Amino acid sequence: MLDERSEADPRTFRTATRGETVPTVPPASTAARETAVDVTALLERGRTLATPVLRAAVDRLAPPMDTVAAYHFGWIDAEGNPADGDGGKAVRPALAVLSAEVTEAAPEVGIPGAVAVELVHNFSLLHDDLMDGDEQRRHRDTVWKVHGPAQAILVGDALMALANEILLELGTVEAGRATRRLTTATRALIDGQAQDISYEHRDRVSVAECLEMEGNKTGALLACACSIGAVLGGADDHTADTLEKYGYHLGLAFQAVDDLLGIWGDPVATGKQTWSDLRQRKKSLPVVAALAAGGQASERLGEILAADAKSSDFENFSEEEFAARAALIEEAGGRDWTAEEARRQHRIALDALDEIRMPDRVRAQFVALADFVVVRKR
Amino acid sequence: MLDERSEADPRTFRTATRGETVPTVPPASTAARETAVDVTALLERGRTLATPVLRAAVDRLAPPMDTVAAYHFGWIDAEGNPADGDGGKAVRPALAVLSAEVTEAAPEVGIPGAVAVELVHNFSLLHDDLMDGDEQRRHRDTVWKVHGPAQAILVGDALMALANEILLELGTVEAGRATRRLTTATRALIDGQAQDISYEHRDRVSVAECLEMEGNKTGALLACACSIGAVLGGADDHTADTLEKYGYHLGLAFQAVDDLLGIWGDPVATGKQTWSDLRQRKKSLPVVAALAAGGQASERLGEILAADAKSSDFENFSEEEFAARAALIEEAGGRDWTAEEARRQHRIALDALDEIRMPDRVRAQFVALADFVVVRKR
Repeated sequence: MLDERSEADPRTFRTATRGETVPTVPPASTAARETAVDVTALLERGRTLATPVLRAAVDRLAPPMDTVAAYHFGWIDAEGNPADGDGGKAVRPALAVLSAEVTEAAPEVGIPGAVAVELVHNFSLLHDDLMDGDEQRRHRDTVWKVHGPAQAILVGDALMALANEILLELGTVEAGRATRRLTTATRALIDGQAQDISYEHRDRVSVAECLEMEGNKTGALLACACSIGAVLGGADDHTADTLEKYGYHLGLAFQAVDDLLGIWGDPVATGKQTWSDLRQRKKSLPVVAALAAGGQASERLGEILAADAKSSDFENFSEEEFAARAALIEEAGGRDWTAEEARRQHRIALDALDEIRMPDRVRAQFVALADFVVVRKR
Repeated sequence: MLDERSEADPRTFRTATRGETVPTVPPASTAARETAVDVTALLERGRTLATPVLRAAVDRLAPPMDTVAAYHFGWIDAEGNPADGDGGKAVRPALAVLSAEVTEAAPEVGIPGAVAVELVHNFSLLHDDLMDGDEQRRHRDTVWKVHGPAQAILVGDALMALANEILLELGTVEAGRATRRLTTATRALIDGQAQDISYEHRDRVSVAECLEMEGNKTGALLACACSIGAVLGGADDHTADTLEKYGYHLGLAFQAVDDLLGIWGDPVATGKQTWSDLRQRKKSLPVVAALAAGGQASERLGEILAADAKSSDFENFSEEEFAARAALIEEAGGRDWTAEEARRQHRIALDALDEIRMPDRVRAQFVALADFVVVRKR
């Protein structure tokens, strides 16, 4: 993880108290950094505002889709009993309601946007898990595994349509503009998944291709989350575009951290297996960067991964074998490159915030959320 | 087919010249019926206006989704060579551009609506074929069969999103209203498919449940096709709602005819197997009406279908065995009931047209398309 490298590189993240880490890179806005921001409270606010509306939206689905969706969101278990599932970090709802405040509107103005973005995000999870054959999500069996492929397709479809419904029933010009941006993000999500699938069948993927795919799969919807509240609050296109720029690069920073956690993350924190992305042969940023780096370790890694791709025994590889691959990726520079890429994208995101006017308090909260996203451990 | 019953019931359809049939029920608007309408030209106009825009929209998809979609639409074959596929009857595009003329707008105003409706229709075909395991559509292998389940899911998703994109990029208030109506129709489509799937696992489905499912699967999107051009042309809600009423009941009439063709249709005309819906154990209108009718034939049919549901040899049944089931459905009154239901829905559709103002020529064309839909043979 990023914080493990703090000794080696003073520009990177230092370990703070209580196991948290903060970036030591110069902040985009020093004034903003000086305002104390309670990120936990900010995330909690997004969740508190969005969840009841999200649940009411999902309740509109006809049976059995309402039940299947409630299972997916972690509100009930496979037997239909109430559950208190892990709803995730809820970064997107926090950003969506915060973005409404850019226009001096109340955070509540962003709620339909927060809900719509969550619905689209979960549409993509339902379909991607099925396409990828992933059996676990948030420590539970995935929907297609429990309720079958047809329900995963149907409920995913329904959530995508519901997202548009929630926005368009507002009946305002702003809602139309918000829906258009959400549709653009949805199309990007689908493009990203198409790229992800096609890359699986290729020996080599360039760093540029990997970044493009991650921009589509992660950047586009986070961009939309960061602008949708502002759009609903009446922001002009320049403001919305700039907030999207912040969100897009934040998404790329998030994904770079995710790719680091996918190889070197602590299984207890991430809820995934050790060397998770290596086991799935994922061509994530550390891998493609290591393969593109050249040099002895890079070439050796290329030979090993090419052999792995043909191996019929791959699933039975030992911990040591995956550890050896991870060590080669690190030796070739893939880990360092990805950590630096996370910092670079984080900087671009923060710089974007300085291009537009917004209340200082709101700016400080966007900065704090960006810091949170790149130092998270899961 | 409906026209085969013309001798028995004078209120039903008489065979016209050139093998076409027209209903002899009193028309909603006698004036409208007296205007000669060339339905073939009307369908051709819809196709000519919508197809280039539809193709340009599909070209926006990232590879390989553009190719997969082009295969689905019949524009290329499985090897990627240009094909001149059966694009279907194109009733929806014809209705969408016609509906623009209700508002005295040019038919071209309805084009984005026609394209969006076609995109949603084809999204549902892609996903439904996969969920239902259907291997053939329009005389060709289905997308999931040729390109795999993941591509069927992805391209379906992309078409749904693209439909909204095409409308919302118009950037008008009317486009926002049109997208909202399209979203409502999309949700109904998904509800209908969910009902269809759940009914498969049940012994009995009521006539009301079957009609509700068919209203969702067929009525809602046809309703949207009939109003979307008018909405884009600035029609008020009452006009749009009434056009939807026309389209919804026309959809139910269409589906009743489809259910008749699914059992008694000529395989050469329909491109399906003989007794197609019986082979698929489909609980279509003639079946549920026959089961609900009571009496000796109805009870005997119930016993036979219950035994069929448990039979492991069902797929090897002979022509005669299916013919015997069809005869029982007819004897119990399921065929007559469904033919009368088609006429009833056709009448409701035509009556709706009289509730709103529109140019006489446009009204006559709506009437002619409604007549065409209920007398078609495929």
